[in-house]
Amino acid sequence: MASTSSNITIIELLSYENPVLRAYIFYTCLLVLKILAMLFLIVPKRFQKKIFISPEDTVLRKGSVADTTDPDIERCRRAHLNDLESIPAFLFVAFFYVLTNPMEFLAINLFRLFTLARFIHTFVYAVIVIPQPTRAIVWGIGYIITIYIAVATAIHFI
Amino acid sequence: MASTSSNITIIELLSYENPVLRAYIFYTCLLVLKILAMLFLIVPKRFQKKIFISPEDTVLRKGSVADTTDPDIERCRRAHLNDLESIPAFLFVAFFYVLTNPMEFLAINLFRLFTLARFIHTFVYAVIVIPQPTRAIVWGIGYIITIYIAVATAIHFI
Amino acid sequence: MASTSSNITIIELLSYENPVLRAYIFYTCLLVLKILAMLFLIVPKRFQKKIFISPEDTVLRKGSVADTTDPDIERCRRAHLNDLESIPAFLFVAFFYVLTNPMEFLAINLFRLFTLARFIHTFVYAVIVIPQPTRAIVWGIGYIITIYIAVATAIHFI
Repeated sequence: MASTSSNITIIELLSYENPVLRAYIFYTCLLVLKILAMLFLIVPKRFQKKIFISPEDTVLRKGSVADTTDPDIERCRRAHLNDLESIPAFLFVAFFYVLTNPMEFLAINLFRLFTLARFIHTFVYAVIVIPQPTRAIVWGIGYIITIYIAVATAIHFI
Repeated sequence: MASTSSNITIIELLSYENPVLRAYIFYTCLLVLKILAMLFLIVPKRFQKKIFISPEDTVLRKGSVADTTDPDIERCRRAHLNDLESIPAFLFVAFFYVLTNPMEFLAINLFRLFTLARFIHTFVYAVIVIPQPTRAIVWGIGYIITIYIAVATAIHFI
Repeated sequence: MASTSSNITIIELLSYENPVLRAYIFYTCLLVLKILAMLFLIVPKRFQKKIFISPEDTVLRKGSVADTTDPDIERCRRAHLNDLESIPAFLFVAFFYVLTNPMEFLAINLFRLFTLARFIHTFVYAVIVIPQPTRAIVWGIGYIITIYIAVATAIHFI
């Protein structure tokens, strides 16, 4: 039980003075901005290739069509979807992991490493395609970190 | 640093008396209900058009097929996916933005405007298709609000 | 108003001693692990069928192709997408529902039932396909629980 293994309370952890909470919130913002930044990979390609997602979008640039088969654009959309599969899951469990009062050094570096892995994942998936297993490895780093955090937190609050 | 620019603590902000927190939670519920309401756009179309997503679903209505190419249904699914790309990202950063003790008037109106923009986005995308750039503009309002909130929160907790 | 209907404060609810919060966090971890576990449904099928999502992945196994039309793999991906549509929405509102000081028995069993329904949903969708309306029913259980929690929380914080 958390409450017996340490005498710190949740509300003491919810403090501006808690460096783990500050790091968590900072990397949350960075990861959200990273998801939003997918726009800058996808939209310029749409205008350049004149390929949009819906028929009514084709007025945005003369001579455009609606199509979902362009390999470059679909690659970016897959990277985006992979973010949606990975990042919210991490953010949910990592917040409650902060409330387990983890070791500061470990927790902050897990948050850092996850964030870095997700940035590299997008880069090797949708910016410059690097041969596999590069993408599999960086994806796996984020995956394993999330599992570790989820299991550690579940054990704490069981 | 947050803790030096104001003397209010996180736990003081986590109070039923904090109108910004109350507004955040209220609009969170509204946005979640909005995502769930996509069902009422998609499922009636599936029954009416006899087009389902999986082969086993075709028993739900005689004469149905499994297909993912119907333009009306796929339009609703794109609107749904756009919600998943936009709303959780906003909800994560906006919660921590509440903990930066933002100006009440600004914060509450950003939450309101984001929510309104997302409702209009779905309406012009999947209920009555309004010519572009209408959808691009309402999407952009939600996008810029999320970026502002993420950047303001990241700076606060850096 | 929450603050008048009970004298408990949010920070009193954010305690290791609050069984509703502990249950919420525990089921959050379980649901996140459940989303991540989709990997074990999808990736073995990709290797066995030699069908990957991106052209560069085909080096992972000799004789592979990139394809998104295999019915078994796409079925698992739809189950995965359904998780992304359902679980984060629930997790957001359920956290704030904890802060409405709900009846302990009701709240914990709603969390339990939602989690169970989502596990069964994936099982009948992507492990052993059970005839409809099985999947529709388990999906509907999670859906109705999320609506109830969102409405109850919105009313509390309006």
